[in-house]
Amino acid sequence: MIRKVLVSAALTGAMLTGIASYSMINAQENKIAAAKFNADGAVSIPQNWRQWVFIGTPLTPNALNDGKAPFPEFHNVYIEPSAFAHWKKTGKFANGTQIAKELVLIRQKDKDEMNKDGSTGEVSGVGYFQGKLTGLELTVKDTVRYPNEPGGWAYFSFGHSAPPYAKTAKAFPTDSCNACHEASAQDDFVFTQFYPVLRAVKPK
Amino acid sequence: MIRKVLVSAALTGAMLTGIASYSMINAQENKIAAAKFNADGAVSIPQNWRQWVFIGTPLTPNALNDGKAPFPEFHNVYIEPSAFAHWKKTGKFANGTQIAKELVLIRQKDKDEMNKDGSTGEVSGVGYFQGKLTGLELTVKDTVRYPNEPGGWAYFSFGHSAPPYAKTAKAFPTDSCNACHEASAQDDFVFTQFYPVLRAVKPK
Repeated sequence: MIRKVLVSAALTGAMLTGIASYSMINAQENKIAAAKFNADGAVSIPQNWRQWVFIGTPLTPNALNDGKAPFPEFHNVYIEPSAFAHWKKTGKFANGTQIAKELVLIRQKDKDEMNKDGSTGEVSGVGYFQGKLTGLELTVKDTVRYPNEPGGWAYFSFGHSAPPYAKTAKAFPTDSCNACHEASAQDDFVFTQFYPVLRAVKPK
Repeated sequence: MIRKVLVSAALTGAMLTGIASYSMINAQENKIAAAKFNADGAVSIPQNWRQWVFIGTPLTPNALNDGKAPFPEFHNVYIEPSAFAHWKKTGKFANGTQIAKELVLIRQKDKDEMNKDGSTGEVSGVGYFQGKLTGLELTVKDTVRYPNEPGGWAYFSFGHSAPPYAKTAKAFPTDSCNACHEASAQDDFVFTQFYPVLRAVKPK
């Protein structure tokens, strides 16, 4: 009886701190690879996100946004492979889905070689080229852990500077990211309108 | 004796048509996954290139190049994973290396919503967003099959239009691609100056 109570208390505690959601999501969602969370709720930096499935790169240069683009870098966006497989099969983002975006500065040259619009001239033409890596962000859909976040999506930053990035990150407040995703993203808070690889495999 | 001659003739024939190079490269280069070639020398479209390692996206819009950019689309560039592992270990492109680039049109809107520089305004700012998929190209380094191509690199196109792409492709003449790669690419005919993911893992 004592043991039963302890186990029950441990389970309740785990559920309150969110530890239990890790395996619950796995069970629910056909083995979607889950993000790792610490006891204090911080998420760990993903392993090998650059070997996840790349889905697209939006670019909004500062020079085209009065010098203050909300997102002045290239965003190389990746989805975790098991979540990609689920999307391909169902057209939905499974609970547990992880999407990472790595920030990349526009390639810079000496001042007199930079165009007013922030572009540079290279052998292949005038345009925008990927310079230095400068940050990593992550979003995780987890309706168990984040029942109060719209769609269950929480957003994290591992820093906006050159690697190495931070090893853990805490979720942003809802208004920082989710509000905009909710208003304008095409599929379940994800901007699939900017991600041709996701659109290409979405079931009809 | 007759059998021996036949085998010998078959081997010579295979080497002349290049079939033998497939396994020779594998043996030489620590199991680099080799491209598949038909008997007539055409290469087969890669399997699952979108799950290769993404390395970068250059963008040279038509509007910034007098309406006639040599490469007016986003280029999503990927390297085959075993070749990536070799690069990460050695800083060199192994014989057998495959690099694919998928072409993606800049997102279009109605004419009155398009800016002069070809950009569009979205919720995240004014810039360039990835629209429709529009082509696939491949380069293969194979000094056995292409002893006369500079660096052993041959270049292929599976079409410049929406998927599905062609199933096979023949190598371009050397001058079409290789000359420019030879003159301006930073590492062994590859434009690593535009590929932050390759630069990030290159051994020092």
